[in-house]
Amino acid sequence: MKSKNYHMTPAQFREEGKKIIDWIADYYENIEEYPVLSQVKPGEIKDSLPISAPQKSESIDEMIRDLNEKIMPGITHWQSPNFFAYFNSNTSFPSILGDLVSSGLGVQGMIWATSPAATEVETRVLDWLAEMMDMPESFKSTSTGGGVIQDTASTAALTALIAARERATKFQSNNKGLEEKLVAYISTQTHSSVEKGVKIAGIGKDNLRLIDVDENFAMRPDLLEKQIQKDKKDGLHPFFVCGTVGTTSSTAIDPIKAIGEICKQENCWYHIDAASFGTAMICPEFRHFINGVELADSYSFNPHKWMFTNFDCNVFWVANRDELINTFSILPEYLRNKATETGEVFDYRDWHIQLGRRFRSLKLWFVIRHYGVEGLRHHIREHIKLAQDFKNWVAESKDFEVVVEPLLNLISFRHIAGDDFNIRLMNTINETGKIYFTHTKLNGQVVLRMNIGQTHIEEKHVKVAWNIIQETAKKLV
Amino acid sequence: MKSKNYHMTPAQFREEGKKIIDWIADYYENIEEYPVLSQVKPGEIKDSLPISAPQKSESIDEMIRDLNEKIMPGITHWQSPNFFAYFNSNTSFPSILGDLVSSGLGVQGMIWATSPAATEVETRVLDWLAEMMDMPESFKSTSTGGGVIQDTASTAALTALIAARERATKFQSNNKGLEEKLVAYISTQTHSSVEKGVKIAGIGKDNLRLIDVDENFAMRPDLLEKQIQKDKKDGLHPFFVCGTVGTTSSTAIDPIKAIGEICKQENCWYHIDAASFGTAMICPEFRHFINGVELADSYSFNPHKWMFTNFDCNVFWVANRDELINTFSILPEYLRNKATETGEVFDYRDWHIQLGRRFRSLKLWFVIRHYGVEGLRHHIREHIKLAQDFKNWVAESKDFEVVVEPLLNLISFRHIAGDDFNIRLMNTINETGKIYFTHTKLNGQVVLRMNIGQTHIEEKHVKVAWNIIQETAKKLV
Repeated sequence: MKSKNYHMTPAQFREEGKKIIDWIADYYENIEEYPVLSQVKPGEIKDSLPISAPQKSESIDEMIRDLNEKIMPGITHWQSPNFFAYFNSNTSFPSILGDLVSSGLGVQGMIWATSPAATEVETRVLDWLAEMMDMPESFKSTSTGGGVIQDTASTAALTALIAARERATKFQSNNKGLEEKLVAYISTQTHSSVEKGVKIAGIGKDNLRLIDVDENFAMRPDLLEKQIQKDKKDGLHPFFVCGTVGTTSSTAIDPIKAIGEICKQENCWYHIDAASFGTAMICPEFRHFINGVELADSYSFNPHKWMFTNFDCNVFWVANRDELINTFSILPEYLRNKATETGEVFDYRDWHIQLGRRFRSLKLWFVIRHYGVEGLRHHIREHIKLAQDFKNWVAESKDFEVVVEPLLNLISFRHIAGDDFNIRLMNTINETGKIYFTHTKLNGQVVLRMNIGQTHIEEKHVKVAWNIIQETAKKLV
Repeated sequence: MKSKNYHMTPAQFREEGKKIIDWIADYYENIEEYPVLSQVKPGEIKDSLPISAPQKSESIDEMIRDLNEKIMPGITHWQSPNFFAYFNSNTSFPSILGDLVSSGLGVQGMIWATSPAATEVETRVLDWLAEMMDMPESFKSTSTGGGVIQDTASTAALTALIAARERATKFQSNNKGLEEKLVAYISTQTHSSVEKGVKIAGIGKDNLRLIDVDENFAMRPDLLEKQIQKDKKDGLHPFFVCGTVGTTSSTAIDPIKAIGEICKQENCWYHIDAASFGTAMICPEFRHFINGVELADSYSFNPHKWMFTNFDCNVFWVANRDELINTFSILPEYLRNKATETGEVFDYRDWHIQLGRRFRSLKLWFVIRHYGVEGLRHHIREHIKLAQDFKNWVAESKDFEVVVEPLLNLISFRHIAGDDFNIRLMNTINETGKIYFTHTKLNGQVVLRMNIGQTHIEEKHVKVAWNIIQETAKKLV
C-alpha cells in the first residue's frame, strides 16, 4: 500500500506555476495603482496571519488570495516606476526567470564538484562584466584575480576587510586573533556597512578613521595621507582604505587614483565600493570615474541595485585571488574531492564567508543576454538623462535648490524653507502613496534624495513626481 | 518619438515565464535520467560559453537551448532522489513558487518601512516554527527573543559569535576591537564553519578549543568543564560554546542540557547548531534531542537542508534580541524613519551582518501552508524510516559495517576492506552517475555517508542504491 504523499506533482506545478507567473505579470501591469510606500501600521500584517501554523495542507489558491488581501497592503513597491527612495533595487523579467531556473535546479554550488556549471558560469559572467567595464586584466579569472558573487556590498566590504587584516598581519590574525592595532580609513560619507564590517572583524570602531571631504563630499587625499602618517607615528598599523564611487548621501566619487597611490605607498588594502554607481561603468563615457581602479585590491558593485538583476547579487573582484582564498579556505575531510585536489578549479566557498551558495549567476546571465551590452547601456543612459532633467527643473525653481550637482542618477535637493519643512514635505508626499522618496543630511542639513533607476521608469513618472513635490510644497508653505 | 526599449513586457513575461515553468516541470519528470554527479572536466562548461558578453539582445529560447545543451551537463543534481551526498539541500514545488513570488515582488526588506510585510511575515512564520518545535517561549518574538532568517548556518554561527563577543566584553569590542583573549569551545566534530567564524570575528583559531568526544562522537561535558577551568586559570576568558544537533560526519548529538548548564555557570554564550537535524524537531518523538534548549542563547537550523525549502534559508533564534540588536545596529541618517523611531517594529538589518534582505519568509510560508505540519512530519518520518531500513541492510551484510547507529536520516558505514577500498568504491559508483554519495573520516578511518532526505525519494531509490553499492563492491574486491 502506497502511503499518503503530500508533495505537489510536476503536473500540479505546471498549473500552479503558471498562475503565479500570471499573478506577477498582473502585478506589473497594475503596479502604479498601489501606494508606493506601504501605509499599514506596525503589527497590522502580523495580526492578520494565524497565530499558529496550519496542521493541514492548504491550497496555492488560498495563498494567492492571502497574498492579495493580506500581504499586498504591507508591500512597499520597490519595482514601481514611482519609487525614488534610497538606492533603487531594480529587477527585470529576465532576471526573475533566471532566478526561477536557479530555484528549480536547486543546486548548492559550495564547491566546484557540487555543480561545475554553478561555478563556471559565475566565473565566465564575471569576466564578461569585468570586460564590459574595462577593468584591469588582473581582476579577471584568466589572470591573478577573479570575481565572485556576494549577497550584498556590506558582505563584500567585510570580506575585503578580513582579507586585508590577514595580509596586514602576515596571515596570522586568523590563527592568533588580533594582536596589534590595525587602522582602517573611510570618508565621513562612506556607507555605514564599512563601520559595521570593522566591528565584526574585531578591528573596532575606535580604529576607524573618518577622513573629511571636500566641497563635493569626496574624500580629501591630503587628509588621508596626513592621518596615516599620524597613526604610524603613534605606533598604529594602517591597513585598509575604502574609496566610494557614489556615496549614499550625495553620490560623491572619491578621488580613486589619488587614494590608490597612497594605498600602494603605505601598503594598505584598497577596496572600492561602487555599490550603486558601478553599473554606469559599463558606459564608456562614465568609465573615467574609476580611473585608478588598477591600484585597487578589491572592487564591488551591486547589479541588484541598478542593473535589472533581482536582489541579492553583489559582484566582488580581487586582483589577487590567492590572498582571498588563503584567508577563507578551510578543507574538512567531508568536503575533500578529486577536483579540488587537482587545483584546477575554483571552490567559491573559499572566496567568502558562507559555505553554501545558490546558483546566482544564472540571473546575471539571463539579464546580460536579454538586454545585450547595448540594451543595458541604453537604459542606464536614459536614467541619467532623466536625472539631469529633474536637476534642471529643480535648478530653475525659485523654491528649491540643488544641493550637489548630480554626477549620475541621484539628485540631492531641498526646499529653501528649512529642515523641518523638508521633512514635513517628504512625509506628506510619501503618505499619499503617489511617489516614495527619502532624505539624508549633508553638512548637518536635511537633503531630499531622488534616485532614478527604476526598470520601467519613463519621463512621465519623473515629471509627475516633480509636479507632486512642487504642488505639495505650495500647499504646505 | 519613443526611444527603443529593451525591456520584456508583462505579456512577453507571461509567455516566457510559462516556458520556464514547463522547463522545470520537465526537469523533475526526467531528473533520474541525468547522471547525479556531473561528469564534466574542469573548464569544460566555461569553455563552452562565449568569451565576451553579447552586444545584442538574445532570446529566452536561446537561453533555454543553452541551458539544455551547455549548462545541464555541468549540473550535479541535488534534487534527484538518487542524491545521497553531504547533507541534502532539498526543495519542493511550493517553495519554488514562494521564491518566485519573492523575486516578482522584488522588495528589499532591510527595515520595517521598506516593506512591513517582509518583516512581519518573517516574524510570524518564525514564531510558527518555534511553536512547531516546542521551543521555549523566550525564543518567540512575543517574549524577549525572536527569530530571523539568515542565509546559512555558517552566517548564523558567526552572528552568534559576534553577539557573544560583545556581551563578553560588556559591549566594548565593537568599539575598541578585541583587547583580551576570549576563548570559544566546540567539539572535534563541530562543523568547520565555527572555526571560520572564530577567524572572521578576530578571536583566532588558537583560542578555539576542540573538546574531545565520547564513543558516539558527542562532546564530553566533563572535558569541556575541565578545559574552561584550565583556561580561566591561565587568565583567559571563556565566552562561547557551540553544541551540535547532528554533526556532519556522524550525526552525533551533543549533550545539549549538560553543556547548557556549564554555559550558564560559566557565563558563556550557548549557541546550538542543528543545521540538518533541526527539521526533525517538528516531530514530537524526536524533540527530546534538544531537551535543554531553554539554556541556549541562540539556536539555528536550515529549512534549506531538509524542510523542502530552497536554498538559502537558515532560521536563527535568540533568547534575548536586545543583545543581538545592540551588537549589529547602526542607524545612519539615510535610514531614519518614523516607524523605527517609535520602537514598535523590528528592523531586521539589525539582526544580522548584511544590510539588504530579500523577502525569504515567503517560501517558508508557502512550504508550511502547502504541507501543513502534518505533511512535513509525515515526510520526515518516512525519510528516517528509510534510513533505518538502509542501516538494517548494512548491519545484515557480511561485507559492510555500520560505523555509528543512525539517530535520524544519515547512515555512516563502510566496507570492511579498508580505507582505500572504500574511496575506490565510492568514486567508482559516483562516476557511473547512478547515485551520488560522499565520505568522511571518523577516528582516522574512511567512512561512507548516505544521507536520506530528498524530497521525492521513495523506498525503491534506497533499495537500488544499496544494490549498486553491494554489486560494485563485489566486482571491485
